[in-house]
Formats: sequence, C-alpha cells, structure tokens
Amino acid sequence: MSGDFLALAQPGVQKLSPYVPGKPVDELARELDIDPANIIKLASNENPLGASPKALSAIADALAELTRYPDGNGFDLKQRLSELCGVQASQVTLGNGSNDILELVARAYLAPGLNAVFSEHAFAIYPIVTQAVAADARVAPARDFGHDLPAMLAAIDENTRVVFIANPNNPTGTWFGPQALEAFLAAVPEQVLVVLDEAYIEYAEGDDLPNGLNYLASYPNLLVSRTFSKAYGLAALRVGYGLSSPAVADILNRVRQPFNVNSLALVAACAALDDVEYVARSRELNEAGMQQLEAGFRQLGLEWIPSRANFIAVDVGRDAAPVYQGLLREGVIVRPIGGYGMPRHLRVSIGLASENSRLLEALGKVLARG
Amino acid sequence: MSGDFLALAQPGVQKLSPYVPGKPVDELARELDIDPANIIKLASNENPLGASPKALSAIADALAELTRYPDGNGFDLKQRLSELCGVQASQVTLGNGSNDILELVARAYLAPGLNAVFSEHAFAIYPIVTQAVAADARVAPARDFGHDLPAMLAAIDENTRVVFIANPNNPTGTWFGPQALEAFLAAVPEQVLVVLDEAYIEYAEGDDLPNGLNYLASYPNLLVSRTFSKAYGLAALRVGYGLSSPAVADILNRVRQPFNVNSLALVAACAALDDVEYVARSRELNEAGMQQLEAGFRQLGLEWIPSRANFIAVDVGRDAAPVYQGLLREGVIVRPIGGYGMPRHLRVSIGLASENSRLLEALGKVLARG
Repeated sequence: MSGDFLALAQPGVQKLSPYVPGKPVDELARELDIDPANIIKLASNENPLGASPKALSAIADALAELTRYPDGNGFDLKQRLSELCGVQASQVTLGNGSNDILELVARAYLAPGLNAVFSEHAFAIYPIVTQAVAADARVAPARDFGHDLPAMLAAIDENTRVVFIANPNNPTGTWFGPQALEAFLAAVPEQVLVVLDEAYIEYAEGDDLPNGLNYLASYPNLLVSRTFSKAYGLAALRVGYGLSSPAVADILNRVRQPFNVNSLALVAACAALDDVEYVARSRELNEAGMQQLEAGFRQLGLEWIPSRANFIAVDVGRDAAPVYQGLLREGVIVRPIGGYGMPRHLRVSIGLASENSRLLEALGKVLARG
Repeated sequence: MSGDFLALAQPGVQKLSPYVPGKPVDELARELDIDPANIIKLASNENPLGASPKALSAIADALAELTRYPDGNGFDLKQRLSELCGVQASQVTLGNGSNDILELVARAYLAPGLNAVFSEHAFAIYPIVTQAVAADARVAPARDFGHDLPAMLAAIDENTRVVFIANPNNPTGTWFGPQALEAFLAAVPEQVLVVLDEAYIEYAEGDDLPNGLNYLASYPNLLVSRTFSKAYGLAALRVGYGLSSPAVADILNRVRQPFNVNSLALVAACAALDDVEYVARSRELNEAGMQQLEAGFRQLGLEWIPSRANFIAVDVGRDAAPVYQGLLREGVIVRPIGGYGMPRHLRVSIGLASENSRLLEALGKVLARG
C-alpha cells in the first residue's frame, strides 16, 4: 500500500467539505488593502454590543492562572447551569462551542449504516458532523424555508439515530411553536435522539416559541444545545453546552476531550449567565435592528424571510453571489447562503444601528448598479 | 429498540474510560475545606513561572473582540509557525491543545479493523483516541520504562495505520536519540503515519535528543505534534499544533471543528512564540528544579526514572496510592500513575524551588509514617 495520505483517510473524512465561515475582517482588509476599521462584518451572527463587562472582569481575574489546565469537569459552570436550567449537573455536557456538542452527538450515536435526519436549509454543521462519521443524511424538504416537522418525522426510518432540529433555524431565522414541537417529540421513536439546537433562543423565546428545557423531564431522548456565542457575546472564547438525560450526558462526556473548554471561557460563561441586563440589552438592540433592516429592505423593494434570530435572510431578487462581492468591495461583509440551497438570499446579521444603515446604503448602491 | 442511550452509543465509545486529569486545586480545597492558597499542585506538568508577559499583553489587546468568532484558519499563527519551523503554512494543523491533534489523527486514519501501535507506559490519550473510534491498540513492551523502538516496529502489522511515539515520553520522562529515531523512521512502512509527540521538546532538545522537524522533509508519513501548554505556559487556553506533509494537514483540517482554537489562544500563542526569553527561563528553572528534586529523592533513599521533561517519576518503594493520598492531606497534589502500569511511582511536575521543597518535605513526612 502506498503512502497516499489523502486516500488512506477514512472514507467519510475524504468526502468532507470544510465549513465556510463568515469572511474575517482582517482577511478582507488584506485583500482590499484597506484599514480593518473601515469594514463592517454582519456575517457571523455575532453580538454587536461588545462583551459583557462582567465577563471581561472574570477573565481579568483568571489571567493569573494561564499556565494551569482548565477544570476539565467545568465544576462551577455546570453548577451554575444546573441551577439556572433546573437540571442536575449530571445532565450537562460542556462544549468548545455548541459545535462541539453537535459533533459529540454524531461521534457517539452515528456510524456507517445509521442516519441522521435534518431539514433542507438547516445549519451546515449537521451534514458535516454526519459526513465525518460516514453516516447517512436524510434531508427532509423545508416548508416556506422553515422546518416541516411532519416531513421530518416521515423521514425517520429504522436506521435513524439522531434528528437535528433548530429553533430558530440558521440561516433562515424560521421557528416553530410549542404545539408543533410537542407533537413532534411525542411521535419520534424513543431510540432516536432529538437534538434541539437553541443557539438563538435568547433572542426568541416567548409565547409562540417554546423553551426546550421544559421538555427534558418528559423526553429522555431530547438534547437541548445552547451557546454563549450569540446573546451572551462570547463567540471568541468557544463555549456551549448540551442538556440531556444523564445517560446521554454520560456518553458525551466520555467522548469529549478532557480539557475541551478553556479556562477563560469557563469563567466568562459563568459571569455572562449572571449578566441578565446584558442579555436583555442584546435582545432589545436586536429587535430594533430587525425593524430597521425590515424597513430598509421594504424601501429597496426586497422580500425577506421573517426571523426570530439575530439575523435575517433577504432575497436580493437575483443571483446573490455578485451582490455579496459588490458588498465586499463596499467594505460590508454579509453571508452568501448558496451552499444552503438559497442562491438568491443573503444572510445579514443584525448589527448596531449605524452598521445596519451602512449595510442598507451599500446594498442599495450595489443593487442599483444592476 | 428501546431508548437506552448507554446501549445505543457506538461500541468504541461505550468502552471509553475518561482521561483522569490532575486533581484541580479548587477541588482539593473543597474536599479538605482549606484555602486554595495553601495547596500546591505538581500534578499536570504546568509551567510554574506564571504566564509570559507578552502573552498577557496580547490577550489584553484582543479582549475588545470577544464577541467575534476566532479566525477559523488561524492565519497569523500558522504564518508565524511556518516561519519559525521552516515549513509551509499548508503543513500546519492547529488544535485545541495537542490533544485535539492526536484525536484528529485517530478520527482520520483509524477505524474498526485497523490499529495503532504505541508503547507501554505511554501517554493516556493514545489509547483513548484509539478506543473512541473502535480501532485496535497494539501495545509494545517498554524497555526501562522508555520506548523500545525496535519492539514498536515489530508490533506494526498490515492493519497498522498510526504509530504514536513521544519524545520525551509522558509520564516517564524517557527519551530516545537521533539515531534511534532515524532507524525507526527508515523502517516504518510508508502507509503508517508516525505521530511524534513533542509536547515537552522545548525542555529537552539537544545533542542527544532530536528535533522532529528535521525529518519532516524526508518523511511524508511523519507528523510532529507540539503544544503551548508546557514551556510556553498557556495550558489554560488550549492550543497546540501538528506539522506534517500537506496531504495529512489537509485531511486533519477537514476533520477539525471550524473554530477549534479560540481567539485568545491564537493571539497568546503568537506572542509566546516571540517570548524567547520566557522559554529560556522556563528551561533553566526546570533544570534547577530537576536537580533539586533528584537530590531530595536521593536523600530520601528513593529511586527515580531519569527525565528530560518538566516532571519526574519517582519510585516510592511501595504502593503509591496511599502516599498520593497522604500528600493530598498535606496540601500537595502530585499524579498517581497506577493507570499507566506504574503502581509504585508518582509523577511529580517540577515546580518553583519553594514548591519542590514543600513536596520533598511532605513526601518525607508521609513516607516516614510508613
């Protein structure tokens, strides 16, 4: 056998296409040879508020211990989450971002011959973690760009072990209500793990959008994943978590790396959980920004997908790729989502009012060029 | 099929025993109900110097961007590493600690029916990452606690895809010289990836201990893994790297999570690479501490395994478990290594002179109790 290390890689891995992240500001600055300060990035659903002062203060206090390994068990953060979420610490799995949680699920419960069900236009990490372990993906058709939960149920077969659902969904911002979720959970076979991805729930929870935690006690096959990267404003640090039955958490904690979450992320996440005011301000800013963008899109004669998250997918009425490139030349980074089967949409993260204005202005300019 | 999520987990995962880290100071403080300031930890091979001022300054500068995702491609750190190590950026894989690199290798190149070869008394992560993908482990017998490279060669069979070797090895501190490495590399079949784990190389490299980077150009089946957790003093932040042929790096970069290394780790690692003085001081402190501990062990009538790393495995002349417990009661945390097949040894990380003295005093006291 030859030493061809592309061919020697596992088949699932060979077929992997890496996730394409939002273009970093520094990268565009290098390409355009301009000052990064003149670029705005509304491409990665980041919190425009800047970090929570409580999180910053917790980090400052932890810097003296930089040479020490993190607490691999994340004792303090698990305690805090279990109090806040009304679960036992044994039900918590901490992740290097919620991406880590999604990957741990795939590595623990999927394999060749088994499959995961998820929706058309769903978060790109679901197909990636499924492909990485060479399991099959069963993609259910979407309905008005959102999850069609009955269609997802119909896609489950005897080899399904995991269903990924997101509420709200990324990149569409679509959501489903408590009744739809309840009917879905009641119908999913008990050996299928339902991963309810609530990365954006802090922007969205309310009367017509359920809190997944309320269903954990009734459904041992439910895992709710959440993140500190969005409303808590800690994307740089990589910390997320899964809440599930103790059995699922036990398995995921065996698979995770011993020090998967770094020390500064652990302390900053604890502090961010206490900064209720920051999360409330994040949500208010987001609601105002959403209205601003919707009004601007209306003026430009564009349609969009109603969203409950901190981003909005706008239909630019033509192939979106050149519009994306035109915006880049204006120093505005948004996210093309052709890879999600949405070639006419751009996903725009809600920014500060001034950033939203600049995006709208640049978009109008680029579209006017035809 | 029932919803038993322990039984539903993949077979390799079900059999995983999690890595047992060094006991955290806070955990012992809670257990003994004492002030953490009265505890010393010489259990995780951490750098006793405290963080590099350059790294701290780089972190402070990056805190304004806490709400932003890391650069998933780690552009700056890869550039810096490629310059320093004399490789192309396309040969670098960044990891959430070098643990991540070891796991990526297993996920990319191992599977049921394939195997990894490693030595008796080798780093615990090798069997864990192998088990997690349900591959077989072929454990070669050690020689005087160190790697027996000819025995490892003999353990390679047609299903071997990876060999893990560590120089120096953890938890033994043992090492091999350039001639032994060269003979080994020349004899390993070309389809077997040799993972040369150099986590401790900054303490050790010299005339009789080779620098793995010198062999990358000749051996496309060589991967050198390194870490910022030891001599660079950044264990809290989780950052390590693999250097390999572009083909292997391409595959590992497909498997890794898109944002596996956090932003503060990226900037701190760049700064730490530039702090040559810090690494030199770390090495000097380590050499002095090693002499101090050896002299102390000699006085106590104990034998030890000669080490080139920042720790030393001492034979306490009896079952080490009660000695470990006795040291804990003295507020001194070291590492029991019974799990490594070394039930009479304790692994002691080299600390500050005052910490080494305190360890020696406590050890004398515990041993005198009989």
